[in-house]
Amino acid sequence: MATRHGDTLLFSQPPVISAWAAVGGKKEGEGPLAPGFDELCQDNRFGQSSWEAAEKYLQLRAARLCLQKGKVAQQQIELALAGDLQAQCTASSYTMRELGVPFAGVFGACSTMAETLALGAALCSGGYARRLLAMTSSHFCAAERQFRTPLSYGAVRTPTAQWTATAAGCCLVQAEGRGPRITAAAFGRVQDYAIKDINNMGAAMAPAAAATLLRYFEDTHTDHQDYDCIYTGDLGQVGSGLLHELLAAEGLLVKNHLDCGCLLYDPARQKVKSGASGSGCCAAVLCTRILPRLARGGQERVLFVATGALMSQTTFLQKESIPAVAHLVELRGAENGEGEA
Amino acid sequence: MATRHGDTLLFSQPPVISAWAAVGGKKEGEGPLAPGFDELCQDNRFGQSSWEAAEKYLQLRAARLCLQKGKVAQQQIELALAGDLQAQCTASSYTMRELGVPFAGVFGACSTMAETLALGAALCSGGYARRLLAMTSSHFCAAERQFRTPLSYGAVRTPTAQWTATAAGCCLVQAEGRGPRITAAAFGRVQDYAIKDINNMGAAMAPAAAATLLRYFEDTHTDHQDYDCIYTGDLGQVGSGLLHELLAAEGLLVKNHLDCGCLLYDPARQKVKSGASGSGCCAAVLCTRILPRLARGGQERVLFVATGALMSQTTFLQKESIPAVAHLVELRGAENGEGEA
Repeated sequence: MATRHGDTLLFSQPPVISAWAAVGGKKEGEGPLAPGFDELCQDNRFGQSSWEAAEKYLQLRAARLCLQKGKVAQQQIELALAGDLQAQCTASSYTMRELGVPFAGVFGACSTMAETLALGAALCSGGYARRLLAMTSSHFCAAERQFRTPLSYGAVRTPTAQWTATAAGCCLVQAEGRGPRITAAAFGRVQDYAIKDINNMGAAMAPAAAATLLRYFEDTHTDHQDYDCIYTGDLGQVGSGLLHELLAAEGLLVKNHLDCGCLLYDPARQKVKSGASGSGCCAAVLCTRILPRLARGGQERVLFVATGALMSQTTFLQKESIPAVAHLVELRGAENGEGEA
Repeated sequence: MATRHGDTLLFSQPPVISAWAAVGGKKEGEGPLAPGFDELCQDNRFGQSSWEAAEKYLQLRAARLCLQKGKVAQQQIELALAGDLQAQCTASSYTMRELGVPFAGVFGACSTMAETLALGAALCSGGYARRLLAMTSSHFCAAERQFRTPLSYGAVRTPTAQWTATAAGCCLVQAEGRGPRITAAAFGRVQDYAIKDINNMGAAMAPAAAATLLRYFEDTHTDHQDYDCIYTGDLGQVGSGLLHELLAAEGLLVKNHLDCGCLLYDPARQKVKSGASGSGCCAAVLCTRILPRLARGGQERVLFVATGALMSQTTFLQKESIPAVAHLVELRGAENGEGEA
């Protein structure tokens, strides 16, 4: 069960993330979080015939590795919550064709990982599922084709551009068990600061992150200092700077903030301009860094705020501005041990 | 709270649909369900600059009319669950930019209405929201551009083709109150019978409807005769025939089945080939026919099984087959009066 305070759900019996897995591509394997991945592949096609099929493969691998680590059979999964960046979320739907579990598709763009965890936690805590998967993916090449220009054009990337991660992450959420706990969740409200630059997602999404965070602090009577770390994703360098400005304008000088978009790649060695992005970025950073630290006791209480830019190539060509949303889950250290992962 | 039987959630305190609204375009206004719509427009552009913006307008109107009929202020809405057929679900996201309520995006293609009701019912019955919106839309012109050929090509429609509805529907789901009740829900498993014809959605989706229905009967120890009507959507004429064949092969001769795709337009007068489709079709039939009958006592217990074809233009061009899913909610007559609509 849960109590509601404003937009926030506080779970009285917090569900746990009992296992997790992340799979990544070549660039992810060259980054600082490489040791945390469960599987990395030098071939970004993953042996598939298209980038889209490669992304499906990524997501499916993450799910299967997660089930394996959680020592849970596919048949024991009561629901999968998944979404991705491809038009009509096909990476997820085609993954589910292989997985064969009950499936509710979600769309939150790069906020998908937090959205699936928030919905999943509510469903588990309410007794609607004992065991479910929350997952997402992205693929650099599939996303570029989807949102920007074909890769073969060789378009020059602007300084504000972010690099879509080729990665997938999957969490096994359980009503009971061992592992980091999801103690609260909040669904965001859409914000639009009239940004129209498709190569500046950070600027479009920073206001959504700020709005959700500020509301959460108010709902829970906490402030940023109550958390070991506030993880956002994926604002990148540019968006993170803007988030700090927006929070400073409200009197909050946040020193304990890290952005998933700034963690996945090495800014000095890997040419990613403003950082990483894509639904798979947050998911991968969650599974390779955030959850392991919570499980090991390195951190005890963190916020995971994933942001999504909700435009499409069509709305971009129609000169619409870019709305964004940020969903939040509060994660706490494992109470009864590390979890299986 | 709920109990789970197999894939089925039975709500011990069923949430209610206390208000609903449907908005449609020109063709919908010429069909047999026209009198049930809350608003109809002769101009399919709804005064907007693009088909995509027109769909956003449709969805927003449906939401506002629903709030008005439910006598509920926007500020009282704790969550909106919405999705649509546009790439990256932009009709819903741009609607939410205007509406400003907490928003969790879903993707279920034409099954979206049932998916939002199923998730919404679980969240309301679990105490996570007292009041939320479950909604979706589709627009013929936006969908043709999205999935098939530009309208101006004037492509000839095949006999199995369905006509995407220009319509939106919105339901106000409440934990308590008056109106038809959502007594059970089941999320479907993805089915793929290797259909590759983008103009034969009925054939792609019929196996999903059959699978979800058969599993539901098993989970609940009921059979088709326990229901006043089994509504599917949107299989159209072709898909409905295939559903009957699939059920007959399991020994079920279902006489009380109606398909939303066969109800929205008049097959004799309106040239729609196999029938209607699009997320807005199910939503509109629900709000103009199914819910009013349940509220008035004309029907007491029905199943609403919405199917979605989970392909995209990209997967079609890549010669992938079309996976499909069907989500189900069981609806019962209003116990404490009609509801507000």
